[in-house]
Amino acid sequence: MDEQLLAKLERTLRREMPICAAMEIAVASWDHAFQGGGQLAMGMPLVPNRNHQDSAFAGSLNALCTVVGWGTMFLLLQQQNLSGNIVIRRGNIRYRRPVRMPHVMARGLPLDREAVDYFFELLRSKEKSKLDVAVEIVDAQGPLVTFKGSYVVQR
Amino acid sequence: MDEQLLAKLERTLRREMPICAAMEIAVASWDHAFQGGGQLAMGMPLVPNRNHQDSAFAGSLNALCTVVGWGTMFLLLQQQNLSGNIVIRRGNIRYRRPVRMPHVMARGLPLDREAVDYFFELLRSKEKSKLDVAVEIVDAQGPLVTFKGSYVVQR
Repeated sequence: MDEQLLAKLERTLRREMPICAAMEIAVASWDHAFQGGGQLAMGMPLVPNRNHQDSAFAGSLNALCTVVGWGTMFLLLQQQNLSGNIVIRRGNIRYRRPVRMPHVMARGLPLDREAVDYFFELLRSKEKSKLDVAVEIVDAQGPLVTFKGSYVVQR
Repeated sequence: MDEQLLAKLERTLRREMPICAAMEIAVASWDHAFQGGGQLAMGMPLVPNRNHQDSAFAGSLNALCTVVGWGTMFLLLQQQNLSGNIVIRRGNIRYRRPVRMPHVMARGLPLDREAVDYFFELLRSKEKSKLDVAVEIVDAQGPLVTFKGSYVVQR
């Protein structure tokens, strides 16, 4: 079930956001502690996303974090057999240290169960709802990039 | 002089951030009201940067705004015959309305003369300085995307 969902997410991203294919963004894993909440991880190789300093281009790092948040929303909805149009409304990103690993991985932070419950409650009653998703890129020394996106879903 | 600088900026971006070539990001114009301050405009076609709704992918919009800010810093330094390593430290973006025009253009907002003077003063005395650059994508109805990036320069 999960593998099918992740494959569906990756097909959706590559088909419908072609620049994600150029960045070679791929779905890695999804750990979900409770129904309707989960941590999605997605990765991309450094080479096509490198910048003038042979670290990762900020635009690619932000795009990776943006689609981890988008994919998290996609999986939340799929898990509940809901469909809806997902758009990012705001994004805040902090580039703390250069990202130099050959394979860059971004992971969603654990979702707050109450926030997710409230998100679905509003979505069911108002046909529209919003959820913030935090995403990080880390190495052994701690966070390299921290991101927060606000996603709006309209049924 | 300006045309040479803009051609140099575009070569630099395409050579050193290859994903910008995939997005077909190109330098459009640079209006500079005073020495050391200016509004850079850069564009990209919608097609390679479209998303699932045939509007522009948020990741591409953010990347375009990020390089307009980066390019503004590059041109500021070149204008003063200074060189330095430019990195973005933070970015905040708001996606207000879907971007559907076939050619997407992002433009830096006018820089504050005092902020630019202070940026160069610190850069010359401390070898390191920071400047915020605001960038917008607009249509006839107003802003579609508003972005602010904080760029750090190390000589």
